[in-house]
Amino acid sequence: MALYVHKYGGTSVGSVERIEGVAKKIKKFKDEGHDVVVAVSAMSGETNRLIELANAITDQPTPREMDVLVSTGEQVTIALLSMALNKLGVPARSYTGAQVKILTDSAHMKARIQDIDTNKIKGDLSEGRVVIVAGFQGVDGDGNITTLGRGGSDTTGVALAAALNADECHIYTDVDGVYTTDPRVVEKARRMDKITFEEMLEMASLGSKVLQIRSVEFAGKYKVPLRVLHSSKEGNGTLITIEDDESVEQPVISGIAFNRDEAKLTVLGVPDIPGVASKILGPVSAANIEVDMIVQNVAADKTTDFTFTVHRNDFVKTEAILREVAQSLGAREVSGAKDITKVSLVGVGMRSHAGVASKMFDVLAQENINIQIISTSEIKISVVIAEKYLELAVRALHTAFDLDDNDK
Amino acid sequence: MALYVHKYGGTSVGSVERIEGVAKKIKKFKDEGHDVVVAVSAMSGETNRLIELANAITDQPTPREMDVLVSTGEQVTIALLSMALNKLGVPARSYTGAQVKILTDSAHMKARIQDIDTNKIKGDLSEGRVVIVAGFQGVDGDGNITTLGRGGSDTTGVALAAALNADECHIYTDVDGVYTTDPRVVEKARRMDKITFEEMLEMASLGSKVLQIRSVEFAGKYKVPLRVLHSSKEGNGTLITIEDDESVEQPVISGIAFNRDEAKLTVLGVPDIPGVASKILGPVSAANIEVDMIVQNVAADKTTDFTFTVHRNDFVKTEAILREVAQSLGAREVSGAKDITKVSLVGVGMRSHAGVASKMFDVLAQENINIQIISTSEIKISVVIAEKYLELAVRALHTAFDLDDNDK
Repeated sequence: MALYVHKYGGTSVGSVERIEGVAKKIKKFKDEGHDVVVAVSAMSGETNRLIELANAITDQPTPREMDVLVSTGEQVTIALLSMALNKLGVPARSYTGAQVKILTDSAHMKARIQDIDTNKIKGDLSEGRVVIVAGFQGVDGDGNITTLGRGGSDTTGVALAAALNADECHIYTDVDGVYTTDPRVVEKARRMDKITFEEMLEMASLGSKVLQIRSVEFAGKYKVPLRVLHSSKEGNGTLITIEDDESVEQPVISGIAFNRDEAKLTVLGVPDIPGVASKILGPVSAANIEVDMIVQNVAADKTTDFTFTVHRNDFVKTEAILREVAQSLGAREVSGAKDITKVSLVGVGMRSHAGVASKMFDVLAQENINIQIISTSEIKISVVIAEKYLELAVRALHTAFDLDDNDK
Repeated sequence: MALYVHKYGGTSVGSVERIEGVAKKIKKFKDEGHDVVVAVSAMSGETNRLIELANAITDQPTPREMDVLVSTGEQVTIALLSMALNKLGVPARSYTGAQVKILTDSAHMKARIQDIDTNKIKGDLSEGRVVIVAGFQGVDGDGNITTLGRGGSDTTGVALAAALNADECHIYTDVDGVYTTDPRVVEKARRMDKITFEEMLEMASLGSKVLQIRSVEFAGKYKVPLRVLHSSKEGNGTLITIEDDESVEQPVISGIAFNRDEAKLTVLGVPDIPGVASKILGPVSAANIEVDMIVQNVAADKTTDFTFTVHRNDFVKTEAILREVAQSLGAREVSGAKDITKVSLVGVGMRSHAGVASKMFDVLAQENINIQIISTSEIKISVVIAEKYLELAVRALHTAFDLDDNDK
């Protein structure tokens, strides 16, 4: 007998029929003798409908009132799911974030959870009830309703699992797990049975949009085993957990992530003196442009080339900023390209295996793919290549690093 | 400077535009230096939409979860109205029933208010804010969300006014006040400036659907002056208040109410022995049929005729029950009619004026209208007549008792 926290997103509870499907899934766990606590999102489309109502009144809605408004979305779902369970003969009770209570700071629309009172939940569990909690919302110390920001229901699920010391937190989604790479690009992409939090963070931040980054961080911090599962199909999904020292045959590479949304910019011939990096990136971040990879090389002539990547939508704006900066710094010129893509190998095994980088460069060289930028971290190697080579590169790497599912 | 509690119903806040209109109305009171606390209903149609969602899952929704569900309706309105006020530069803050807190018993879907904590509201008022409270909802001692039953927002408004010792409670509706009778029947019907709680109760229970009966009772009990006003038109509406002993020229009759929804049934030739009334009405109320007027006359031959009225929808069902009862009682026969109507004169002045009844019967006799049943209370005389005479009777009485608005 285990204690599971389930989290169902907006699509999984997007209609009365789907809510009834979710109730059946929960019943299966109860029938097997497990305890279940559930965090749910608003029915898909509902949050947008509420935001549109607010925007019809004002383009600057009071953040406190915005939270009062949008938090009704999850409240509707918890009531309906609880009714559906009661109808199936599974005793259930629903709670809003304030009722639980999920204590947050007072940063409306982007609050952070500070504490969860587990008394009511534990009381219900001990009486055999399923407990349904509204995701995405909480309450501050003064009793004001807060929300965690969009997608925050994952965080609610993980935080509940941590507070209750649950055996696993199940995140039900529209995919059946985390794959070694995007199955739309590599036919032989394989569902991973297991992945570490760190690997998942690198995969997530690189475009595998299965889980919200914050909830993975949170799960890692509190060592809550996370399992990604399909909300309507059967299967074991992918378990995201802490590194398992005992597994001898840990794969070197867990997966390959890529991101098509990047563009690169280079300031060429910058004088190589202290403070140059901040002079270049300062105005960029002041314009609220997020910078991803940053690479700098010293050249022989006491100047350096400074390269970084930004979201493709920010390319034109960034280029304009750089032209001004380059002039004031006495740099030679500014160049850039939007037709690039970032490909990353991710794997904790990299830590103890040398030669991963050189093998990666080898594989790309054999396919005649030129590497424009290289950036590495402890469990990740990223390269920027021309976008047209994306599929070719990912497939070659997927095979070379033994990730292919040969049953496909 | 006064403290007003405003209550706006579902139609008054039925769209974003109407919510903005309500905000402007509230602003006017603030600009005049008054304090305002507002109770609001769900946007019209919203509560039904939520109930339909629940009914799509089960025809027996858990009452506790039903309250979690439908209470979101008012929560949406308070947030939007608060935003609209903030946009107009009027500082405002919204509260759910639980946040206030409006403490109720635990009778889900028909809870009764036990206590209102006014601390937060008074704090906001002292800082110059308008306070918006979700009508129709509260919270029980265990923190469960409760609702007061449909139409309960009136009760919330009155209860807030009582707890805050407000100068007046304004109920904004789609009529501009309480009329001496239905203006659709009597063209010269006059808006009353003032009416007593008792008179309003008699008018309301007889079909003047301006106010919820419970809220009038509540207002009378706590002596909260109620004013019925139109939510979009100007005007002073009708003040419902305690009897004013000092007004010398109190009218004898305040208004004429009528009810087309009744049907009458008579058990003829019932043996006149103790316990007969309960033997007749017992099975009727056991079938959940509500009985209105009850009249019994002793006849010369030691039998009696027992007559009562029910809602027209219950006529057939009641008749079937009575046929069985009549047989077991040895009564002569059962007769009934659906083409009847009840007309009532209402007025506290009746207490100190003799002759109202005989004048009423006189007026009807002059119009050749036969009276089928008579029933009186301290401030009301009701007669049942054939439905076809309804308009004729009400108009004749309206003129005879000096209620006509001669400017029309």
